Amino acid sequence: MKTAGKTHGTGCPVAHGLDTFGDRWTLLVLRDMILHGKRRYGELLEAEEGIATNILADRLKHLEAEGLITRVRDPQNRRSYLYGLTEKGLSLMPVIFEIIKWSAAHFPLTATRKRLLQRINEDSAGLIREIRAREAANPLP
Amino acid sequence: MKTAGKTHGTGCPVAHGLDTFGDRWTLLVLRDMILHGKRRYGELLEAEEGIATNILADRLKHLEAEGLITRVRDPQNRRSYLYGLTEKGLSLMPVIFEIIKWSAAHFPLTATRKRLLQRINEDSAGLIREIRAREAANPLP
Repeated sequence: MKTAGKTHGTGCPVAHGLDTFGDRWTLLVLRDMILHGKRRYGELLEAEEGIATNILADRLKHLEAEGLITRVRDPQNRRSYLYGLTEKGLSLMPVIFEIIKWSAAHFPLTATRKRLLQRINEDSAGLIREIRAREAANPLP
Repeated sequence: MKTAGKTHGTGCPVAHGLDTFGDRWTLLVLRDMILHGKRRYGELLEAEEGIATNILADRLKHLEAEGLITRVRDPQNRRSYLYGLTEKGLSLMPVIFEIIKWSAAHFPLTATRKRLLQRINEDSAGLIREIRAREAANPLP
């Protein structure tokens, strides 16, 4: 995807980042894996934004090609896959947290999201450790 | 643009943010205004990623509609416009800085970008103040 727009050659780190994850659906898939611990195709398809199955499949392939996630066959269902975050994918947490902080300043938040924002504002390092620990405790089979 | 994909209704702050600025070109235009102080259409068109003029025009319109930039007629050239960052646009600096930090960990940086990264790592609050002061010193006419 997005081959025509690739700008890895320009050397700008903003462009590098955007080429790798800077697509709305790509970041929403990462959000579901990072914040909600989703790891199955079916779970990711249930994103409340209503992602289409072909777009989800494309973005998962892209994320795997970019090394942000890995994929293994689900031992409980050999026709299906499990997806896990790599260190490169997990290290996007601060980007997602800053997006949340920015949005919170400009849009109303629900109570659940207010608690998440408070956690990010007060102890983002702790939240990052917690998410890393959750991933480490659930390695892909 | 992107009306079909709008998810403001879901209440997720990540989705809110991405609906507002989460398009690769939109963020590259903001990068040029924030980091390079560009404020003319012609300057923005010179982005090294090679933005097409119709895409630039579309993204500027989108940024203005979302309240991230404002636009006035250029008093020196009445057929042209000057673009300025609003507080809402300037407050995206931490998101852009985190993208730069993430990229720096995964892609090689040029010397100029290494200096920028060092500044962000050592004194991002100072850099934010400096960019805000530059904007305040050059208000749109």
